[in-house]
Amino acid sequence: MQPYELTVAEAAEAVRTGQVSPVELVESTLERIAQVEPHLRAFTIVTADRARAAARRAETEVAGDAYRGPLHGIPAALKDLIDVAGLATSASSRVRAGHRAESDSTVAARLASAGAALVGKTHTHEFAYGLITPQTVNARNPARVAGGSSGGSAVAVAAGAAAFALGTDTGGSIRVPAALNGVVGLKPTYGLVPRHGVTSLAWSLDHVGPLTRTVEDAALVLAALVGHDPRDPASVAAPAVDHRPGPGTDLTGLRVGVPGNYYFDRVDPEVEAAVRRAIGRLEELGARLVDVEIPMTRYVRATQWGLMVPEASAYHERTLRAVPDLYGADVRVLLEAGELMTAGDYLRAQRARTLMRQAWQDMLEAVDVIAAPTVPLTAVETGRTSVTWGDGSVESVSDAYVRLSAPANLTGVPALSLPVGLDPAGLPIGMQLMGRPFGEAAVLRAGHAYERTGTALGLASVP
Amino acid sequence: MQPYELTVAEAAEAVRTGQVSPVELVESTLERIAQVEPHLRAFTIVTADRARAAARRAETEVAGDAYRGPLHGIPAALKDLIDVAGLATSASSRVRAGHRAESDSTVAARLASAGAALVGKTHTHEFAYGLITPQTVNARNPARVAGGSSGGSAVAVAAGAAAFALGTDTGGSIRVPAALNGVVGLKPTYGLVPRHGVTSLAWSLDHVGPLTRTVEDAALVLAALVGHDPRDPASVAAPAVDHRPGPGTDLTGLRVGVPGNYYFDRVDPEVEAAVRRAIGRLEELGARLVDVEIPMTRYVRATQWGLMVPEASAYHERTLRAVPDLYGADVRVLLEAGELMTAGDYLRAQRARTLMRQAWQDMLEAVDVIAAPTVPLTAVETGRTSVTWGDGSVESVSDAYVRLSAPANLTGVPALSLPVGLDPAGLPIGMQLMGRPFGEAAVLRAGHAYERTGTALGLASVP
Repeated sequence: MQPYELTVAEAAEAVRTGQVSPVELVESTLERIAQVEPHLRAFTIVTADRARAAARRAETEVAGDAYRGPLHGIPAALKDLIDVAGLATSASSRVRAGHRAESDSTVAARLASAGAALVGKTHTHEFAYGLITPQTVNARNPARVAGGSSGGSAVAVAAGAAAFALGTDTGGSIRVPAALNGVVGLKPTYGLVPRHGVTSLAWSLDHVGPLTRTVEDAALVLAALVGHDPRDPASVAAPAVDHRPGPGTDLTGLRVGVPGNYYFDRVDPEVEAAVRRAIGRLEELGARLVDVEIPMTRYVRATQWGLMVPEASAYHERTLRAVPDLYGADVRVLLEAGELMTAGDYLRAQRARTLMRQAWQDMLEAVDVIAAPTVPLTAVETGRTSVTWGDGSVESVSDAYVRLSAPANLTGVPALSLPVGLDPAGLPIGMQLMGRPFGEAAVLRAGHAYERTGTALGLASVP
Repeated sequence: MQPYELTVAEAAEAVRTGQVSPVELVESTLERIAQVEPHLRAFTIVTADRARAAARRAETEVAGDAYRGPLHGIPAALKDLIDVAGLATSASSRVRAGHRAESDSTVAARLASAGAALVGKTHTHEFAYGLITPQTVNARNPARVAGGSSGGSAVAVAAGAAAFALGTDTGGSIRVPAALNGVVGLKPTYGLVPRHGVTSLAWSLDHVGPLTRTVEDAALVLAALVGHDPRDPASVAAPAVDHRPGPGTDLTGLRVGVPGNYYFDRVDPEVEAAVRRAIGRLEELGARLVDVEIPMTRYVRATQWGLMVPEASAYHERTLRAVPDLYGADVRVLLEAGELMTAGDYLRAQRARTLMRQAWQDMLEAVDVIAAPTVPLTAVETGRTSVTWGDGSVESVSDAYVRLSAPANLTGVPALSLPVGLDPAGLPIGMQLMGRPFGEAAVLRAGHAYERTGTALGLASVP
């Protein structure tokens, strides 16, 4: 086994005990990047010099009894919407040509002080405004989409090109590519992880969170990211909680909600079967299954779009006027459409969200976690734009990918995606576990217990 | 002295000790209403039967050792935007003809359980969307405007037609009529007093609060109103604090900010002189005066309107389409204009507010309270629509009245208006004390110390 194959938890243990030095770990990961990146195109930039410098520093510190904790010396990648001082934040857009961030985002600074070694920045669907990430290919099959918008982060983690990565999630952008590439993605509770220094898509829906190979790793990374930062107006001073799940797999006492509506409608039968099997596994581990009815589902799409589209247009207002041709056609049309929306449309969406949050809060009194598919279908062929469902209805691929993830953005609840199998084409299937606001611990506990039954996918083998 | 002349604190003491029975107190107030209401027209409805029933109940309870606290048996009036079960909430509008509230608003329920006796509901500028309250006349001079939108509440309290009243404040609607009629008005911190069951003007700016004859009374009433209610999405679970000021007048240690910009620009010289004298009084009482620079003042007007106008239009969307002719012309044109605003305009205002809140928070680190005029001019003649300032600029009366009060709505900080003298025409002048979010205690302490130096105005003498 090569060092790049280690999970964060394994690598941390190896670094702490001196079995593997941070320098070996980072060199192994950089070699892996050199091997796979020509095929995957997950990175906007590989920061080998920074990674090596951080690794040498970590090596010295660990040897000198200055061990900083489980991210010390661990190779990390950041979605290229996240500012790192001295580097461009390209947003995978021509609009950002020549950009250079003056200072670290809050999350980049927190990872740096935890000792993580930045190996590179990863591709996003342009400005996070899409679910494909066209520059990058799926880690499991190069003819399939990477998913997005945090496509580069998911692919890098799935391929062993980083031990973990950060992404952002406005309508599913962490969870969708996590599901499509067979890794773990966590969208934390709204306000838990500060977004200062992270390019916004729609600030009332934006979240930052980890992509990892295991649920345990997601908990380790999350612990380094949380904490109030007044520079993000939505950042909350939540009580410090240890989100790391315990070693046990006993889920006795945990109430898992199984949706009777919405989350299993217009879902590929293979996806449904895999998720229902995984829910059965949770029950075998001691969880009690509870039927839940998801409220206000017919408002999800209009509310998500009604909030996201005008907020995105407001954010891009100046550059859209100054350099409209530098945007990709798909993003430009969305930004221009957003300028036509009325305040009344936006306010209707805000009010619907308020009601939806309340209704979800009521629903979540009866359960600790809700289990559902992350996305209704696995990674589609590159270039495919629509899906035809069994009931004859046709849906755009983007709408399909965002349909089951958007409710957690609207309500702000934590949502974890983890792999629960492969479809007959060998493409990963993701299960989504959602919890109460600031209920990360319950979500991670359920996900970790599930993965301890031995179902995590291995690294993607790249040609 | 008649019972109706007692302040809340005095009446409470008289009731508690048996010197005055709630029945006497309520009867005296109802007589006063009968005397002054034909001249003032402060009420949309006088609820004599309810008041008498509450008074009899209070009398029995107090005699039976079931004293509920300082509002027990005290005559109260509610702005007619506040639901009381079984009564119309007229909003002083023809649109609400035939309305009947099915249940109490949170604040009405809290006052009822504190034992207050509802004597009536008071006129508002139609749907709170204006600063005049045309149905009502100023308590000190019938040729002058009552101010608004809580005009009826301020006039009723100033005339002794209620010991206290509640109003609502979206851009100054408690403080402006308080200042113009020579009473005390408190707009609490955003989120401190729940608004469930109160007709909204613009929900991100709306506040409910007391109008009283003294600062001490404002603290007493506030104590009965605070406490989290999840039915108002903005309601916060703030720590329980006793807002009642102590008996002392020593302000040693209190830092009072005196604005060097904005709050004394385009202000009537008599108003400025009275407020500066009052600030000098605070200094004599031990406060330390600190110069402060108010941030982002050139954004106040656009931000206030950019938030208020579309939110109001969204609230009225259905009735504006169904029965546009039932609105007054002034309100209808504002509501119709709001439907034309874009989401981008609204979002710009939201973002400006976020920055403004942050900038005020930074400013308020250096002081405990900011002292300023409430309004730049005293009550104008009925029908007057504009003001010409010393610099030659012309301003609408509405803009002038909202100019100094809107910042506390945008930033959510608590703001108290209290009388600090009369102009040469005998019209009251108000000073505004603003504090940190949830810093009601400091604001009330300063206001109470000031009023203990003997400057409260007596009741208005009605012809």
